[in-house]
Amino acid sequence: MYQLLNGLSLVEVSSFVASPTIGLYCAQFGADVIRVDQIGGGQDFRRWPVNERGDSFSWENLNRAKRSVALDLTKPEGRELLVRLCQQVGTLATNLPAKGFLAHDKLAQGRPDMISVRVMGWPDGAIALDYTANAVVGYPALTGHGDEPVNHSLPAWDFITGAYGAFALLAAVQRRTATGLGGEVRLPLTDIAIGTVANLGRVAEVLYSGHDRPRLGNAVYGTVGRDFVTADGVRVMIVAINERQWQGLLRALDIGAAIAGIETRESVCFAENDGMRYAHRDAIFAVMEAAIAPLSHAELAERLDAQGVTHGPYKTLPQAMEDDRLFTANPMFAQCDSNPSGFAYPAAGAFATIPQMERAPAAPAPLNGQHTEQVLAEKLGLSSGEIARLIDTGIAGVAQ
Amino acid sequence: MYQLLNGLSLVEVSSFVASPTIGLYCAQFGADVIRVDQIGGGQDFRRWPVNERGDSFSWENLNRAKRSVALDLTKPEGRELLVRLCQQVGTLATNLPAKGFLAHDKLAQGRPDMISVRVMGWPDGAIALDYTANAVVGYPALTGHGDEPVNHSLPAWDFITGAYGAFALLAAVQRRTATGLGGEVRLPLTDIAIGTVANLGRVAEVLYSGHDRPRLGNAVYGTVGRDFVTADGVRVMIVAINERQWQGLLRALDIGAAIAGIETRESVCFAENDGMRYAHRDAIFAVMEAAIAPLSHAELAERLDAQGVTHGPYKTLPQAMEDDRLFTANPMFAQCDSNPSGFAYPAAGAFATIPQMERAPAAPAPLNGQHTEQVLAEKLGLSSGEIARLIDTGIAGVAQ
Repeated sequence: MYQLLNGLSLVEVSSFVASPTIGLYCAQFGADVIRVDQIGGGQDFRRWPVNERGDSFSWENLNRAKRSVALDLTKPEGRELLVRLCQQVGTLATNLPAKGFLAHDKLAQGRPDMISVRVMGWPDGAIALDYTANAVVGYPALTGHGDEPVNHSLPAWDFITGAYGAFALLAAVQRRTATGLGGEVRLPLTDIAIGTVANLGRVAEVLYSGHDRPRLGNAVYGTVGRDFVTADGVRVMIVAINERQWQGLLRALDIGAAIAGIETRESVCFAENDGMRYAHRDAIFAVMEAAIAPLSHAELAERLDAQGVTHGPYKTLPQAMEDDRLFTANPMFAQCDSNPSGFAYPAAGAFATIPQMERAPAAPAPLNGQHTEQVLAEKLGLSSGEIARLIDTGIAGVAQ
Repeated sequence: MYQLLNGLSLVEVSSFVASPTIGLYCAQFGADVIRVDQIGGGQDFRRWPVNERGDSFSWENLNRAKRSVALDLTKPEGRELLVRLCQQVGTLATNLPAKGFLAHDKLAQGRPDMISVRVMGWPDGAIALDYTANAVVGYPALTGHGDEPVNHSLPAWDFITGAYGAFALLAAVQRRTATGLGGEVRLPLTDIAIGTVANLGRVAEVLYSGHDRPRLGNAVYGTVGRDFVTADGVRVMIVAINERQWQGLLRALDIGAAIAGIETRESVCFAENDGMRYAHRDAIFAVMEAAIAPLSHAELAERLDAQGVTHGPYKTLPQAMEDDRLFTANPMFAQCDSNPSGFAYPAAGAFATIPQMERAPAAPAPLNGQHTEQVLAEKLGLSSGEIARLIDTGIAGVAQ
């Protein structure tokens, strides 16, 4: 938690990963994020992983540092309260449909400078998820070693969309501050996926060459990078990303003569040309394999570090959690004892580190409806009698 | 291109993917992004994919809509000019080392409210890349079908870091506007990777259960989702992400009775419990396979669409580029004829769509040094004689 966005208030009506991440990142930078959910929790409230009583570890980490308002959104009065709350606050992040009861035009009728940031599937409103957007833009066809498509297990498009959504929200707020104008920022997962493909030059590559690049297994496109196994059985990802690292790699593995042999045999020059190194990667990888096979991981790491070559061992998550720099001594993590699940553990705060500011520890997620009374009074000016009526009639819910 | 960030000016000194993406997203929202490179191009200037003369399609798509200043950064006078430019503009995005000549403290000595956003490998300054950060946090160990780790081919951490970096930059600018204070925002790839793991609840899951989740191949954790092959050989990713979609899936495939059979046999109830559906996924997948095998892709898609179930066929990128919604009729893409490579093709603009604003077409990347004279005059107030001397002495470069 860093206090960068004090004064920014945001209603979030969202589920799963991308849309909640927008609010999470803003909340971790000090914004007041008011998450509004169905009483008892929305469709992502029990999303696995869960504890024995079904409390979601996913939900409670994607919704840290937010406030929670619970309403019955199946009833017109609950929806009307949410619309009023959005209009009062003026800024909304959601993945609800563009033409539903939180349609931007409807909100803007009561709040002309309304800003809505909307995560979508396809631009036309058709549904898509990270997993289907990934399939249709072709990444699984390039991933893995065999002939069949392989999904990434990281929901990468969700997280790219969430971070980009937080960025777009602040950009829209900056424009509103400067001009008084609001608007709806639509973020279709499929546009973010194909746009990212294009930004890597791959659309141009296909149009220029007439075909897609080959599937590379664990090798890196366009440079010298792949996984290798040491004498003690540790698999290590090694990438020589620039000229300095390439020269360092030759020294670290003492393979200068063998690589020069390839250059002579193939009549090529690898210096200052990582594309050429990539084109001859199979021969280079064979030389690297032979040099790495007799080394222990400790020896290999020492040699690569001494020459400034990028490398990292493959770990499982439990192994990663034994690493000081990643987890056990990482100041990004702080013990959180008051999670809704009742389980206490170190929780991640903001990804950024700002040496000039104090990092406040990660705050817990709210209980469903924990701030219903507070927010209805503060933002909508409802009296305690009015709020009691809403609770009694089941329109509003409060934490048990 | 949308004009949301008019008035924001930013110096970018960066290479590869994450750091240039910060500037790209800002430039596509109307910020003035001044990229400063070594004369003739930095270490990513020839990054593959390239055309026949070696111009990078990757570089020219990651650097659209920016201005380019070329300096000899190996010489003290070139570095000093860059430091002055950073201090004059007041905002920097970079992946240069924290302790190098663009160290934040040094910049802040001449510009107390300086903001630096710095993409790093590890928090302690050790090098890491997307591929090594991914290996150390354990995603390859969960990806694919076999026993060996599989890298994702998408550099996901780079893009998450780039989007988060653009967000953090705007957050820091908002704080400076409110308080007059600057600061350095450090973004280590490894923190973003392990922090994202934690935000998905996976750190809590490991601490609670004592072990990691299993490798799932192309199945989705915690719900009903996997790839299936139709009678005409089309592989389709199908996800029933919520209760409504689960009920829709039963109707679409006419498998209600078969699924009820599993519930009876196993004494479980799948309704309102996607975790339970996930736990019994093998039995459910077998029923789905049998129902899908006789259907053509067209039949399957029609049935799933009619019931609102999420699905998407696996495509290669060339196949994706034949899709109207993704590419050929997608207004996010606009023909760009003046790319540095000389190759003309449709280029992606901002990922966001804002119905209330006009989308300007994607702008081209600059030539190396195209704006050197303009920026040195405009930002540093150098005379034309002074600029001519810098060019003559090889300290500054201009586009050929």
